[in-house]
Amino acid sequence: MTEEIQEISELSAEFNKSIYPIFQCSRMDIVVIGGGAAGMAAASKAKRVNRDANVTVIESGSFVSYAECGIPYFLQGIVKSPNDLLHYPPEEFTQKRGIKVITGRVVTKIDTASLSVLLDNGTAVKFDRLIIATGARPRIPQGIATGVLGIRSLESAIRLKEIIDRSKTITIIGAGVLGVELASTLTEAGKKVKVISKYDRVMPQLDPDIGQILNDYFASRVNVEFSSSPVEIKQDEDQYAIKTTVDDHRSDLVIAAVGIVPNSNIAQDAGIKLDQRGAIITDSHMETSTPGIYAAGDVATVKNIITGEEEMMPLAQIANKAGRVAGSNAAGSEMNFPGAVGSTLVKVFDMEVGFTGLNEKRATASGIEFGKTLIKAKSRANYYPGKEDIYVKILYRNSDKRIIGGQVLGKDGAAWRLNTLATAIFAGFTVEDLFYDDLGYTPPFGPVWDPLIIAGSVSMRE
Amino acid sequence: MTEEIQEISELSAEFNKSIYPIFQCSRMDIVVIGGGAAGMAAASKAKRVNRDANVTVIESGSFVSYAECGIPYFLQGIVKSPNDLLHYPPEEFTQKRGIKVITGRVVTKIDTASLSVLLDNGTAVKFDRLIIATGARPRIPQGIATGVLGIRSLESAIRLKEIIDRSKTITIIGAGVLGVELASTLTEAGKKVKVISKYDRVMPQLDPDIGQILNDYFASRVNVEFSSSPVEIKQDEDQYAIKTTVDDHRSDLVIAAVGIVPNSNIAQDAGIKLDQRGAIITDSHMETSTPGIYAAGDVATVKNIITGEEEMMPLAQIANKAGRVAGSNAAGSEMNFPGAVGSTLVKVFDMEVGFTGLNEKRATASGIEFGKTLIKAKSRANYYPGKEDIYVKILYRNSDKRIIGGQVLGKDGAAWRLNTLATAIFAGFTVEDLFYDDLGYTPPFGPVWDPLIIAGSVSMRE
Repeated sequence: MTEEIQEISELSAEFNKSIYPIFQCSRMDIVVIGGGAAGMAAASKAKRVNRDANVTVIESGSFVSYAECGIPYFLQGIVKSPNDLLHYPPEEFTQKRGIKVITGRVVTKIDTASLSVLLDNGTAVKFDRLIIATGARPRIPQGIATGVLGIRSLESAIRLKEIIDRSKTITIIGAGVLGVELASTLTEAGKKVKVISKYDRVMPQLDPDIGQILNDYFASRVNVEFSSSPVEIKQDEDQYAIKTTVDDHRSDLVIAAVGIVPNSNIAQDAGIKLDQRGAIITDSHMETSTPGIYAAGDVATVKNIITGEEEMMPLAQIANKAGRVAGSNAAGSEMNFPGAVGSTLVKVFDMEVGFTGLNEKRATASGIEFGKTLIKAKSRANYYPGKEDIYVKILYRNSDKRIIGGQVLGKDGAAWRLNTLATAIFAGFTVEDLFYDDLGYTPPFGPVWDPLIIAGSVSMRE
Repeated sequence: MTEEIQEISELSAEFNKSIYPIFQCSRMDIVVIGGGAAGMAAASKAKRVNRDANVTVIESGSFVSYAECGIPYFLQGIVKSPNDLLHYPPEEFTQKRGIKVITGRVVTKIDTASLSVLLDNGTAVKFDRLIIATGARPRIPQGIATGVLGIRSLESAIRLKEIIDRSKTITIIGAGVLGVELASTLTEAGKKVKVISKYDRVMPQLDPDIGQILNDYFASRVNVEFSSSPVEIKQDEDQYAIKTTVDDHRSDLVIAAVGIVPNSNIAQDAGIKLDQRGAIITDSHMETSTPGIYAAGDVATVKNIITGEEEMMPLAQIANKAGRVAGSNAAGSEMNFPGAVGSTLVKVFDMEVGFTGLNEKRATASGIEFGKTLIKAKSRANYYPGKEDIYVKILYRNSDKRIIGGQVLGKDGAAWRLNTLATAIFAGFTVEDLFYDDLGYTPPFGPVWDPLIIAGSVSMRE
C-alpha cells in the first residue's frame, strides 16, 4: 500500500460520513472498470451520490449495461435482437446520467502509486476512487485448447448465435446451471443437444435426493453422457470431433459451460488480495484490501450470511446491489452490503428449479451439523386445475434449527417459493418460524398447507 | 371461573411441560366443537400428542374437514363435486386417527361447572380440555331479514349451487375479498352479475391508490353500483326485487358477502371473554380467558404481530395453525402461536391480488407514522415473453423503516411476491432489508431488479 492511498483512506473515514464532501478542492475522479451490471450500477449510484464527481466507465467490449442472463434466450431465438438485451442505450448514461463511457478499451494496469489506470492504447486515466467490476470469463475445460466456445459478452453471444443458426448438433460441456439452461433453450430451438457432465447427474448444486428428480426429467429430454470429461476436441471438416473419457462424438458446435474465472489479473498485479478462487476479497463496503479501491460483481466476493465467509456469488442481482454499494461508498455515502445466500433460479424446459443457502455437501464442508427435510406436495389446492408436483428441501442447523439451505423443484410456482424460502433464510428463520410464516392462501395459487409450511412442519417433528 | 377449572389450570402449568402426562389417572377427554379447518387440525394434533386421550369432535353440519376456500370454485363449476372439497374422508379421522366425530349436533351450552358441553339432543359430553372452533357465519346486511343467501358451510354451498345453476342474474352485496372473488367466478361461469358496494371502490382493504387500479379492472368486467346499500329485498314472482339507496334492481338470486360474525354465543354464555367484534380472545397458547378452554379459527383472535393486538384474522391457513397450537396445548405439549400479519390472496379474473399487514387506514388508526411507496414494474425481464405489469405497495414505519404492510397486484407472479413480502414483514424487515433480500433471478420469472427490490430501494431514498 502506498503512502498516497493510505492518506486517502484516512480521509475517507471522515469523507464517508457526508453525502456532500466538504473538504474536496477539485472534482473527484471515480473510475469504474467494466460496464456490466455491477459497473453500471456503481457508476450510476456514484454519480447520484456525488453530482460533482467525474465518473468514468471503461469497458473492454462495445456494449454497456446488457442483460447477460438473457443470452441463453437470445441464443434460443426468444429474444430476437441483441439490442433487446440492452437495459439502457449508452446515451442514458452519457447524456442523462452524466457518466463518461469509454468502450473498446482494456485496462492493462492499475497503478496505485500514481492513482491511475493504464489503457491498452497507452493512455492513463487518473482516479481518486476506483471500482473494479471486470466480471468473469468462462473456464475452458482442462486440457482443451481450442474448438470450444464460451459465453463471455454480448459480442461473443452475437457471434455464437450465428454459429448456432447454422448448427444442427451442439455439444455442451458441463451440466451446471448454465449447462442445463443452454441445453434446455437450444433443444427447444430445435437443436440436437448432447451434454457432457463430469458428475453422475446434472446440476450437482442440488443434493442427490432432489437432484435425481431433476436429473430424470432432464435426461429424458436431453442426451447426457455422465461421469465424462473431454480429452480432445479437433476441428474435422465442417464439424468437431470430441473425444471424451467415455466415448467419441461429433457435433457442429461445442460450448463450454464449466464455470467461470474472475477477471482479477490486474487487481492481483496491483497487490489487491484475492481468495483461493481468484476473486477479489471485499468487505461490507465492497472495498478491497487496498483502501479507496472497490470491487463488485462476478470478480468480487460477498459475504455468505450463513457461513460468514467471503466468497464468489456470480449472480446478476448480487452484482447490481454490490455495485450500487461500491459506487455509493466510493462517492462518499456509506452503504453496507449485508451479505447474501446465493439464491439461484433456472428454468429447465417447463421445470422451475432453485436453490439457496448451503447444500448438504457445503454444509458438511463447513462443519455444520444439520438435519434435512424433503417433501413432495401439490402446487395448488388439490381440487383446483393446473396443480403440479412440487418438491421442497430444507436443511437446518441442529443446534438451533435455523434454516441454512433450500432447494425447490416443480413446474408451477416453484421459483417464487424458492424466493420466499430465500427470504426466510436471509431473515434467519428457524424451521418453526417457517411453519408459522403467514403466507397468503387461495386455491389457485397454493394448497392451504403450502409446501413451504409442510416443510417447516415436518422439520419441527424431526 | 369455577373452582374445578381453577384447579385444572393450576395443574396445567405442570402438565404442559411434558408430552406424556404423568399424573393422569384416567384417559383425558378432549372435546372439540367444530369440524372445520381449525377444529380438525386441533383434534388431529391433540391425538398425535396424547395417544391415550379421548378426542371428540362435535360438528353441527354433516361434513368435517372441508375446504371452505374452495366453495367459490365449486359454485363456478371448476370443482365438479362437493366431495372434491373434502380434505379427508371421515374415516381418516375416525378410523385412522382414532378421533370420535359426532356430526349433525349443535352444542347449546358449555357448562364450566360440570366440565361438559350440552348437545341439542339433550346429551352431555364431558371434557377435561375444550377447544372451541365454531367458526363464523355470514353477516346479513342491516335491515334485510330474508331473501339473501350467504355461504356458511358446505351444505349451504350445495344448496346455493343448485340455485345458481337455474339463475341467470345474480346480485352480490359486498365487494370485499369474497364479493369480488364470487363476482369473478360467477361471471366466468356465464352469469350476469351485479355487485352492490357500500364503498366507492371494490376491495377497500387496498389503499385508494393501488385499489383504484384493481377497481378499474374489475368495474370494466362487472356491473358495480358504488356507495350503495340494500334497503329492502322482496321475493317477486320468480325473482327478487332489490331496492338500494341508489336504485331498484331485479335478479334471480341475491348473495350476501358483507363480512362474517364469529359463532361465539355459547362461549359468551360460559363467561369467556370476547373482543369488540365478538371473537374469542386467546393468548399465544390459543387458550381463552377460561383456563383449559381453547379457541381457534374464525371464532378466535390471534395476535397481530405488527400492532401487538389480538384480533380476528379469519383466514384458513391461520385457522389450521392456530388449531394445531390449541390441540397441542390442550393435549399437554406446549406450542406458542407467534401471531400473524393477515396475508390474504384472491384471484379476480386473471388478476392476482394480495395484501398483508396494515393498510394506510389501519396504520393511521393505530397511530403509526408511516411512509409509503407504490411502484409499477414488469413481472419478468423486459425482453422475456409473458411479462405483465405488477404493482407493489409497501408501508413502513417512519421511526425505524420497518415494513408494516404490503399490497401487490398483477397478472403474473403477483401472488407469490405478496407471499415473499409477507415473509419479509413476518420477519420484521426494514425497507433496507427488503432491498438486500437475496431473491433468485432468471429472466422467465422476474426482472433483475425485482419489483420487490425496487420497492425497497425507492423506500430507502424517501
